[in-house]
Amino acid sequence: MLEPRLLSINQVTLMQQWSLKQAIEGLARHDVAAISVWREKLHELGVAEAARMIEGHGLAVSGLCFAGLITSLDRDEAAKARDDVRRAIDEAARLKARCLVFVAGGVDPRNKDIKATRGRALDGLASIVPHARQAGVKIALEPLHPMICATRSVLSTMKLANEWCDTLAAEDTVGIAVDTYAVWWDPELEPQIARAGKRICAFHISDWLPDTQDLRLDRGMMGDGVIDIPAIRRMVEAAGYTGHREVEIFSARNWWKRDSDEVVRTVKERYQTAV
Amino acid sequence: MLEPRLLSINQVTLMQQWSLKQAIEGLARHDVAAISVWREKLHELGVAEAARMIEGHGLAVSGLCFAGLITSLDRDEAAKARDDVRRAIDEAARLKARCLVFVAGGVDPRNKDIKATRGRALDGLASIVPHARQAGVKIALEPLHPMICATRSVLSTMKLANEWCDTLAAEDTVGIAVDTYAVWWDPELEPQIARAGKRICAFHISDWLPDTQDLRLDRGMMGDGVIDIPAIRRMVEAAGYTGHREVEIFSARNWWKRDSDEVVRTVKERYQTAV
Repeated sequence: MLEPRLLSINQVTLMQQWSLKQAIEGLARHDVAAISVWREKLHELGVAEAARMIEGHGLAVSGLCFAGLITSLDRDEAAKARDDVRRAIDEAARLKARCLVFVAGGVDPRNKDIKATRGRALDGLASIVPHARQAGVKIALEPLHPMICATRSVLSTMKLANEWCDTLAAEDTVGIAVDTYAVWWDPELEPQIARAGKRICAFHISDWLPDTQDLRLDRGMMGDGVIDIPAIRRMVEAAGYTGHREVEIFSARNWWKRDSDEVVRTVKERYQTAV
Repeated sequence: MLEPRLLSINQVTLMQQWSLKQAIEGLARHDVAAISVWREKLHELGVAEAARMIEGHGLAVSGLCFAGLITSLDRDEAAKARDDVRRAIDEAARLKARCLVFVAGGVDPRNKDIKATRGRALDGLASIVPHARQAGVKIALEPLHPMICATRSVLSTMKLANEWCDTLAAEDTVGIAVDTYAVWWDPELEPQIARAGKRICAFHISDWLPDTQDLRLDRGMMGDGVIDIPAIRRMVEAAGYTGHREVEIFSARNWWKRDSDEVVRTVKERYQTAV
């Protein structure tokens, strides 16, 4: 049996059903021990009130999602994006979040040089690290699926995340989020998770549906797809990770349309049978 | 200026407009020097008649697309799939195709172990090599985009294709097809293309649209997306490839709906401006 206290639910899993206030109350009612907070929802409620409510309900915060998108070729745009990451770091500190999930940003169509794009993302990240260190917030680099490389993240593999960590040399402040949906296909997954070791500061879970119909919003419930989630969980745990298993399901056609209590009940059940 | 004689058009680019007969006649009329043949279309026309017509119109055949999908867990299903690959090898020989494009197959939902799935694909491939060698047909392993790993191909990266080639030790018979759409995001692309060297026996081109709406059928015309196609072309040519640049655009919402002559004219124009 997996430890119930290590189950976290990212509120995006109930994006259409719940505000942050409803998510905090709802997860507490279902005895879910931890939440991951979505920033738009956080801003609706306000950071102070969110922090107060989360503490009042005894929830852990496995992560704040997300900040980043710092790959713009335009210097002013890129500077603004980095400022937003700093604001997110302060929010994560207020929420006592285990980490701030960092999404690099996609390819700026004004310059298709993907190596240069990755260079801008890494440089921008380096300039943010001191702020995170001072705030005591862990930045979780999240490799995302290559199918959203153009629009969301040029950080496409665990190997590249490890290389960025090597370059940043900020092991106290920069870690890696492993998301089953993003990395399951990777032939290098096992050795790169082992290499990441203690860098792993978040573990996100959802499943890949064979009939996936959307590049972002059609993730599956654990057990409904083809990912060997227990195998990946064992890899991250063998690497030394002992934190939350955070369920993060973007599902416009299915789970976002269901009754919220049914979604949470299903997550809790699948956590025991398919994780 | 790129050599006009090295432009090939995969007939899938005109999937909705043309039969194989129409494609052969149409490409010849537009002075396109080479075609890549789609198997379903080939079977409609018949192999003998197709070979006769292609030779009669003086077209080169840059490839036959595709055969494979040999990852089934069921022994009989897998054996039937391998037999179909052997038939495709014979067809490729009759057409004097430069290669037969090999698509490994996806994850069998009956067993989610992706390493074992890749093992079955590689073993199956090994058993087919002698038939290809005897027929004088080059098998082109095509790494496909990780977003179709579940359904079409567990061969997801150039690195893995190189590893399979190393294991097969059949350099005379097994090569690699580099498809810009499938590999552009890969941080390891440049070194793995260099490593492939003379293994590269096909180069497929299309573009990645930032607003991609489908996992298979929404490819873009060269120049309309974010892939630095000339950079990848230079990589494969630096590796020693001197063959066709084959335009392969699956586009249900756009190019499949357009007038065929307009499509071919646009391909010829973009071949000079965006490849």
